[in-house]
Amino acid sequence: MRADAPAIEPGSLAVVGLGPGDPALRTPAVGDALAAATDILGYHTYLDLAGPFRPEQRVHATDNRVELDRARHAFDLAAAGARVVMVSSGDPGVFAMAAAVLEVLEHAESPAWRRVQLRILPGVSAAQAAAAVAGAPLGHDFCSLSLSDNLKPWDEIERRLALVCEADLVLALYNPRSKARPDQFRRAVALIRGRRAADTIVVLGRDIGRPGERLTVTTLADLDAEQVDMRTIVIVGSSRTRRIERPDGGCWVYTPRFY
Amino acid sequence: MRADAPAIEPGSLAVVGLGPGDPALRTPAVGDALAAATDILGYHTYLDLAGPFRPEQRVHATDNRVELDRARHAFDLAAAGARVVMVSSGDPGVFAMAAAVLEVLEHAESPAWRRVQLRILPGVSAAQAAAAVAGAPLGHDFCSLSLSDNLKPWDEIERRLALVCEADLVLALYNPRSKARPDQFRRAVALIRGRRAADTIVVLGRDIGRPGERLTVTTLADLDAEQVDMRTIVIVGSSRTRRIERPDGGCWVYTPRFY
Repeated sequence: MRADAPAIEPGSLAVVGLGPGDPALRTPAVGDALAAATDILGYHTYLDLAGPFRPEQRVHATDNRVELDRARHAFDLAAAGARVVMVSSGDPGVFAMAAAVLEVLEHAESPAWRRVQLRILPGVSAAQAAAAVAGAPLGHDFCSLSLSDNLKPWDEIERRLALVCEADLVLALYNPRSKARPDQFRRAVALIRGRRAADTIVVLGRDIGRPGERLTVTTLADLDAEQVDMRTIVIVGSSRTRRIERPDGGCWVYTPRFY
Repeated sequence: MRADAPAIEPGSLAVVGLGPGDPALRTPAVGDALAAATDILGYHTYLDLAGPFRPEQRVHATDNRVELDRARHAFDLAAAGARVVMVSSGDPGVFAMAAAVLEVLEHAESPAWRRVQLRILPGVSAAQAAAAVAGAPLGHDFCSLSLSDNLKPWDEIERRLALVCEADLVLALYNPRSKARPDQFRRAVALIRGRRAADTIVVLGRDIGRPGERLTVTTLADLDAEQVDMRTIVIVGSSRTRRIERPDGGCWVYTPRFY
């Protein structure tokens, strides 16, 4: 994305990241794409964050579980000449729509889809937004893992968790817990508790950058799974992650650059 | 960072991320902080990206190796009542200035430093910017590792690399190679080659979002260490990372959401 890149053109699809929600954390490139769009697609919660839209802009709201159908619809619209924008929260490239769009493109049902001018516009991810409010917990080596087993076997999730704990990386855990699988987060925490000290710092960021945002700093021992839902990002510190008390009673959390 | 957060105040320090360089990828919150600053500190290359500044704004350019001195200077200025902004490229929370600032705050030389109103404003990281141009290589579980052994023993870097290879994470490698340590990147690549298939996809992003940006898609077998320097971010795919050929002769790279 260069500043002199062409404006969004007919027959194009831009997959954009809104960032955490606050418009002050959304890039101008994404704002420009939304303003130029004829058609805007996305999960209705994210469309609410992206709007308001002009009356002549067509808004296609969908449920959260239909990523591939949404991507196919976007290619159909773009191939027919529309200026299409698909919205993700955070960064579309991090556990979001960009991979689904490319999955659909790889198995393109129409040759016209391959001629669509596709662009991915990055954004500030949920983990980065929570980290910035907390301090700098991602200041050194870290990993981002999804705990959802909708598309990945749970055994593989546990295997990866064990290895990244051994590597002493900070963990940013996406999709930690849903109503459909309330116990898996407890299993993940139990696994981590077996491999990290009880006083390991844990940061919970819920709806960061949105109304009602809540940041909680706790420890691995005190972490209560009931504090966590799908709108929460969980950051588990490494052995080096530290906290600094603040005069206002809060604290800063950071992971030093040195080891 | 809420939209209704107070504007940058006297006696404050904002540690801000410029994103990759292109102003279209910089958040409005960061632009507002820069506009309100009385004093702006940073590595001179990043200050060039952040400017131009008004004549009355004081710009304090430093070399890249003096992070702690720069942070102390920032606290001194803010404690004396200035509106201070410290610039990082990318995200200040990812291998950048936010951790250095908190390290200095923890060992504050003056009690006045603790009363400085400190904020961290996130940005699009180098890995995210390169990933967006390439497609969605970070679309599933990934880790971000620094290969610099200035502050971390090389043995620890190799240990972590081996574990994250075993975990089959996508790797985003920061600080891959410098003139002072030209051979370590070769050692890292040799280690990864022993653990990943020869046709594993590798993305090299150099100066992405800046003039002369260059994206290279290659394989682990064909990766040439001479293509890589400190201005390059290296993304090594997992066993699942795929490429899609494009009609224009290029390709898209993505890591599927499913396993």
